[in-house]
Amino acid sequence: MQFSSALLEAAVNEFSRLPGIGKKTALRLVLHLLKQDESQATQFSETIARMRSEIRFCKRCFNVSDGDLCTICSNAYRQQHIICVVENIRDVIAIESTQQFNGTYHVLGGVISPLDGIGPDQLNIDALIERIEKENTEELVFALSPNIQGDTTIYYIQKKLNGRNINITTIARGIAFGGELEYADELTLGRSLQNRLPVEKYMNR
Amino acid sequence: MQFSSALLEAAVNEFSRLPGIGKKTALRLVLHLLKQDESQATQFSETIARMRSEIRFCKRCFNVSDGDLCTICSNAYRQQHIICVVENIRDVIAIESTQQFNGTYHVLGGVISPLDGIGPDQLNIDALIERIEKENTEELVFALSPNIQGDTTIYYIQKKLNGRNINITTIARGIAFGGELEYADELTLGRSLQNRLPVEKYMNR
Repeated sequence: MQFSSALLEAAVNEFSRLPGIGKKTALRLVLHLLKQDESQATQFSETIARMRSEIRFCKRCFNVSDGDLCTICSNAYRQQHIICVVENIRDVIAIESTQQFNGTYHVLGGVISPLDGIGPDQLNIDALIERIEKENTEELVFALSPNIQGDTTIYYIQKKLNGRNINITTIARGIAFGGELEYADELTLGRSLQNRLPVEKYMNR
Repeated sequence: MQFSSALLEAAVNEFSRLPGIGKKTALRLVLHLLKQDESQATQFSETIARMRSEIRFCKRCFNVSDGDLCTICSNAYRQQHIICVVENIRDVIAIESTQQFNGTYHVLGGVISPLDGIGPDQLNIDALIERIEKENTEELVFALSPNIQGDTTIYYIQKKLNGRNINITTIARGIAFGGELEYADELTLGRSLQNRLPVEKYMNR
């Protein structure tokens, strides 16, 4: 692509460095900002800069936060004795959007994956164990991706908590709503048979 | 979507205000910037802010420019007596990318479209006429979209130049390369028959 302005080219290059944004999309976004009032573009860039420099991670659950504690950890109406263990911030947002969970979170920052060189030490697992001991947590709900790495992580943490009086659960795995039985993989279908629910319990949800 | 950080939410909102970017994509982009080094995010926001505040429009052709004149207008190796009339900056970039044009441009900033309330006065048409008179332009190449608005604009400018000794052309319209004859619309196919080329001329391209 040929640009007649170095400023334009620099802006397009910055946008196209973002994931999933190619040169053509980047140009469209930049030209949009160029068409807007200057204050809009200023606000855009200032908000991004401020977000990056001021955002912190909650020192209790490692979720993104504006202060020392995130809004979930500092909310007295949430069940502080239930911790939902998730991989990343995106999962917190996804679960919050369901409005079905009223406990707190613990963001691991990934899952144990020896092939990618990620061991327990790179994750916020020690902090989780400490937190459980200090806070006398009653229930740990694992909401990790249903794959080997997720299962390994659950196994590792469970071993670490051996002997503790704590209720450990994991989110249900099964056929998704709207999914077709014939297209479900065997593992999912098999597990959903093993973990079948009484119909009354299912209907009452 | 529920966010536990107002800073994060503000950044996501800014991104999702851009065309074609929804909340989920915006979140992905913001989390990407959050994962990067702080200097990367700072550079991103500074480049955008600088582009918006410092960019100017070439006072001769209305293309984006870093100075008074754009790099195309100030390039002595380009044929300054040929002007290609385009709708917007994007068209300049598209034509420049073909590397088949060595003249200059004139960006109209749109086309005449009474239905959208855009008349000749809102476009850079007067500046074009003045420029042609001052510079003794030899050829005017219209590269406007092939629709009624584009044709109206060509007709209007042509009328304004009535009596001037200037060569007025328009880019060829016909079947696109790789296009299938049977799917071409009748107007395009009809025009491409009317404007057929001698094979030698076509093959020499």
